[in-house]
Order: sequence, then C-alpha cells, then structure tokens
Amino acid sequence: MSTVLCFCLRGIIPGPIEFTDEVLFANAHPSMSHMSPDFARVFGDCIRMTRQLLYSEDAQPFLIAGSGTLGQDQVSANLVEPGENALVLHSGCFADSFADCLQTYGANVDQIKAEIGGAVKEADIENALQAKKYKIVTVTHVDTSSAVLSDIKAIPNVVKRVSPDTLVVVDAVCSVASEEIQMGAWGIDVVLTASQKGLGTPPGLSILVASQKAVQVFENRSTPVTTYYGSWKKWLPVTKAYENNSAAYFATPPVNLIYAFHASLTQIMQGSVSLEQRFKLHQEVSRRVKKAAEEIGFKGVPLSEDVQANGMSALYLPDGFTVSDIVPRLLKKGVVVAGRLHASIKGQ
Amino acid sequence: MSTVLCFCLRGIIPGPIEFTDEVLFANAHPSMSHMSPDFARVFGDCIRMTRQLLYSEDAQPFLIAGSGTLGQDQVSANLVEPGENALVLHSGCFADSFADCLQTYGANVDQIKAEIGGAVKEADIENALQAKKYKIVTVTHVDTSSAVLSDIKAIPNVVKRVSPDTLVVVDAVCSVASEEIQMGAWGIDVVLTASQKGLGTPPGLSILVASQKAVQVFENRSTPVTTYYGSWKKWLPVTKAYENNSAAYFATPPVNLIYAFHASLTQIMQGSVSLEQRFKLHQEVSRRVKKAAEEIGFKGVPLSEDVQANGMSALYLPDGFTVSDIVPRLLKKGVVVAGRLHASIKGQ
Repeated sequence: MSTVLCFCLRGIIPGPIEFTDEVLFANAHPSMSHMSPDFARVFGDCIRMTRQLLYSEDAQPFLIAGSGTLGQDQVSANLVEPGENALVLHSGCFADSFADCLQTYGANVDQIKAEIGGAVKEADIENALQAKKYKIVTVTHVDTSSAVLSDIKAIPNVVKRVSPDTLVVVDAVCSVASEEIQMGAWGIDVVLTASQKGLGTPPGLSILVASQKAVQVFENRSTPVTTYYGSWKKWLPVTKAYENNSAAYFATPPVNLIYAFHASLTQIMQGSVSLEQRFKLHQEVSRRVKKAAEEIGFKGVPLSEDVQANGMSALYLPDGFTVSDIVPRLLKKGVVVAGRLHASIKGQ
Repeated sequence: MSTVLCFCLRGIIPGPIEFTDEVLFANAHPSMSHMSPDFARVFGDCIRMTRQLLYSEDAQPFLIAGSGTLGQDQVSANLVEPGENALVLHSGCFADSFADCLQTYGANVDQIKAEIGGAVKEADIENALQAKKYKIVTVTHVDTSSAVLSDIKAIPNVVKRVSPDTLVVVDAVCSVASEEIQMGAWGIDVVLTASQKGLGTPPGLSILVASQKAVQVFENRSTPVTTYYGSWKKWLPVTKAYENNSAAYFATPPVNLIYAFHASLTQIMQGSVSLEQRFKLHQEVSRRVKKAAEEIGFKGVPLSEDVQANGMSALYLPDGFTVSDIVPRLLKKGVVVAGRLHASIKGQ
C-alpha cells in the first residue's frame, strides 16, 4: 500500500494550518453580543480587509458561519437558476463536489477534466464556451487533492472574449492568502474560501466575495432562491449593515471566529512583509520544499512547474516505498503528512 | 420611546451567554486535523453527550458549522417535501423565520398564532390536525422574543393522538440545557439548537438531534433533497463515522468549536449538580429574578407562570418609564439588557 502525500506550507497538512498565538487568543475572546457596536466594527473591518486582500475595490464579501462547502452552496443556489448551464473545470476532486452541488440546485453541469496533475487547457475552455451558453464557469484555484494550480488570470480572459456574460467563479479554499488573487484586475466574479487554510483562522467561517456583476446577476434572477441558510436575499442586508459598522440580524454570526479572523487578517495585511512579498516568499519556500523532496526521490503530482501550487505540495511516493516506510520516518523529523485525497491516484 | 427588555439567566442578554474559562481555553486549542483520531474521539464524545443531554437513547445528532438557523434549514429541506403541509405554532418571532424557511423549500405552511405572551392552546392544535394532514408541527420551546415557554411534553401527546405520523419539531435554540427536554419519553422527533445559549459555547455550531422516526421519514423521501450544505444524505455518514470515533469528510467541521462544546458539555453533564438539579436551579433563580423585577415595577411578557421560560425573562417597561430612564440605571448595577426583539411589542 502506498499513497499520495500532501504537504501544506504553513501547517504541513492540507489544512487546517497552524494558528498564531494572537489568533488563538482572539478565538478565546470573552462573550460579546453580535448586536453590539464594538463587535460590528470588528466585523466591518473583516469585510473591508477581505476585499482588500483580493485586490478588489467594490466586490461584496459574505462572512457566514459554515465551512468552505457553504461557498459552493451559495454560488449554486444564488447565481445559477434551475435548468441553466454550468461548466466545471476539473483539476482534482473538489470539482466533483462543486458539480454535485450545482446539480443539487438544478443546474445542467458539464465538466472538462484535466489529466491528473494538470490544469484544464485554455483551448478546451474556449471550445466549450463556443459550443454552449454557460451561466458560470467554476475553477479550483488550487485543488487540495492534486496541488494543481489553475491559471485564474488567464481563464477570465478567455471567458470575457468568448462569452462575456458568463460568470467566473474561483474555488479558492486552498489558495487565498497563499497565492495572489487580483479579483478586480483579472475579472473574477466570485472567490470562495474558508478560514482554516491560508487565512490562518480555525475552521467554521465561510468566506465568499462576489463582484458587483455577480450581485447584479443575483438581483436579476427570474426565479426565487431555493435555499434559506445560504440565501443572499437574507445575507446582503446583513453584510452591508456590518460594513457600515452597525449590526443586523438574520442568523447569529460566529462571533469568536470573527475576532480570530480579524487578528489573522491584521497580521496578513499589516505584518512586516507586504502582500506582494508574502506571495513571493510562499513561492520561494515552495520551490525549495519541492526541490528537496525531489532530491530524496519524491515526484510531484503536478505535471509541470507552471501548475504547481505554492501553498501546498502533493507528491507521489518513491518507487518501492510504502506509507509504512515513509510516514514514521517523516514523523521522526517532525513532518506531518496527509494522504488519500485524490480518488484516482489513491495509493500512489 | 420604550422597549421590551429581555434577560437571560447566565449571560443577562438573550444569547450569546458568557463562557467559562475552560470553554474559552478549549476554543483556543492548537490546530488539529479534523481527520485525526484524537479529534474524532472528541467529536464522538460530543455526539454521545448531546444525545444524553436530551434524555434520548437512539436519536441521531448532527453537529455542523453554522448558526441555529441552519437547524430550521435542515428540518425544512430534509423532512418536508415540496407541496407537503407544515403547521407552525407561533409564540414569538422565531416562528416567522421557521415558516419563511419551510416555504422556501416548498412546504405549504399554516400558522397558529398565540396571543402575545401566551403559548398556542392544545385545543387549537388538535383542531388544526383534525382539519388537515401535516407532515410536521413545529414549536418554539422558548421564543427569545417573548420568553414564552411552550409545553413540549403535552404537544407531542396531542399530535400522537390525533395525527400519529406527523413529526414534532422543537426549535430549542433558547432552551437546551436551561429547560428540561426529554426527547425520548415525550416523543419529540427533532430538537434543533445552537451552541451559544444554554450550551455555553461560542456561536457557530448548529446542533440538531433527530429521532429514528425522523431519520426514517428522511430516508423514505420520494423526491431528492434540494439543499446541498444541509443535506442529511451528506451528513449522516459523517456523523455516524465520528460517533464510531473515526473521521469522515463532507465539509470541514468547526474543530475548535467542537473542543469548546466538549468542554461545556463535560461541565454540564459531569459538573457538581445533576441535570435534574440544574433545571431546578434554573427555575428557582428565574422565579427570584422575575419576582424582584415585578417588585420594582416591571411586568413580565408571558401571561402566566406556566408559560414563563426559566432560562430568560422578557419584561415590559413600567408605565411612564422609557429606555433612556431604565437602561443606564441597570447598567450602573451591572445588568445588561437587550431590547426590540418582538416586532408586535417593540417599544413597550
């Protein structure tokens, strides 16, 4: 028996990563009412910093108690109406769950599957968009099961050229704050993520940012939204109120996690390195890790350097080695690994 | 201008309540993988203790990242199929959101509205059940907006007598661990709640417990579930795996909140007072608070003692007093109040 090993830079497993003392301290904040002005200001700060982290000027963040999966749910329920078409770019198993989610809400889903360790080719996306009208295209920025990095700067360009009305949705659970995402300049309509990976906050917070174009598409729906908990009809007034530093109620926010997220965002945005330096450092460290792993006999899952994630690494076991050979040795050196994420290469 | 004041016993506002040091310490737990055996055991304990707290032997708990509202979502999406009838017993404004949620998922909703400060009468429930076939009846155990306590021991009896197939769903966000709930003996099919009130854990955890009868009804659906994030099809295998002390994945659980919930449940279940004594103490303290409030001129919102919640109190302002008279005086005495919850008596 052997397996695929996935390393994540900060926490050495593909999430949750380790948290700083400041974040854990904030997560132990004494009870605060979610309706208090003090909390509203902190929540407002989180909304503003989230937008800034994605280099956006006017996109609309939603911070809701839930996991990253709730982001897929929000996209599927709010932006695609029953019977509309969705194109899912598949570079690992998180595309399968997105397709499943979209179908649950009534979308007709087509998938373009990249070869294992590769990203979907632009020419294939272009052909698909020319053949059929799609409401949205979804792409996993970094798929945790393959460590493949998709080019989310190039994809919106293809979409804009061939099918300008189609929304570009990036599942960025495993990339926000580890990889650069210029939401505004690159023309991305939705970035969805979660608290527990690059954002360095305990799990339990769904973070989604929607462009004004996406919000417009939502507002111009011809059918009602068929979800309750993830409905933007409920959450839009709430997120707007908190951004305005005042409280509003639909469902109780995860108050302590918001304090923790605030601490982490503050460290990311106002730390000793700029955002640009942060992404560069991730890239440099990632290359060193991958080079060292190759030197001792591992082969990376991503097929080439241009599709290698910088926030995590997925490696095939060296020939002739098994998990029980490798894992105890790595553990002795303080390296924790996670395995078995991508169904098709399970055991390699 | 005046208002309705709501007191909550432990935290003096109607949630979130104050947390113990042990709970906050657990919420600052260093990062743990949600797939680790250590975490799986803690999650398993939480599932078992939640069941025990509701005096059930075999009901199925679901612990999911989300707010209490996600419980209403789960019930509406998993237990009621489009076009089926739901009866909502209205004793405060949380019935309005439950009705809204049920309608979102396609249910035909009827409401029986109690007079303000009262609970719905058994005779009215009986008449409604005789007139129409309902898939579920929902009742808010303690409505945060009115502090009215509904009799969730008597209601399942009426339902069982008149319409034995109808499921009884209790919205117990504001009552679990403050009021006694004997899920098994009283014949309740769903108890839904959240972490931040009687359960003494920061907000962000949706807690729902379903009877085996409710699970059967879910499994015998003739139409697919139309939600993704709250779908029991996804969560049933996960909760069963964790109860078996092994990990499973659909969406990342809120790991730190689970540690915090474990700390709080341990204090509740293994503390110096038994569960029975705990509920009795709540009742005694509540009566003292209400008596003292009456003596200084406040009148309770609940119309009589038998519908008064023990975990919180809602009071009308004394005649001639305004919020600006009262709130600063209470604050000086260290009493924090929350207002404006029930739309119909806002300002009284």
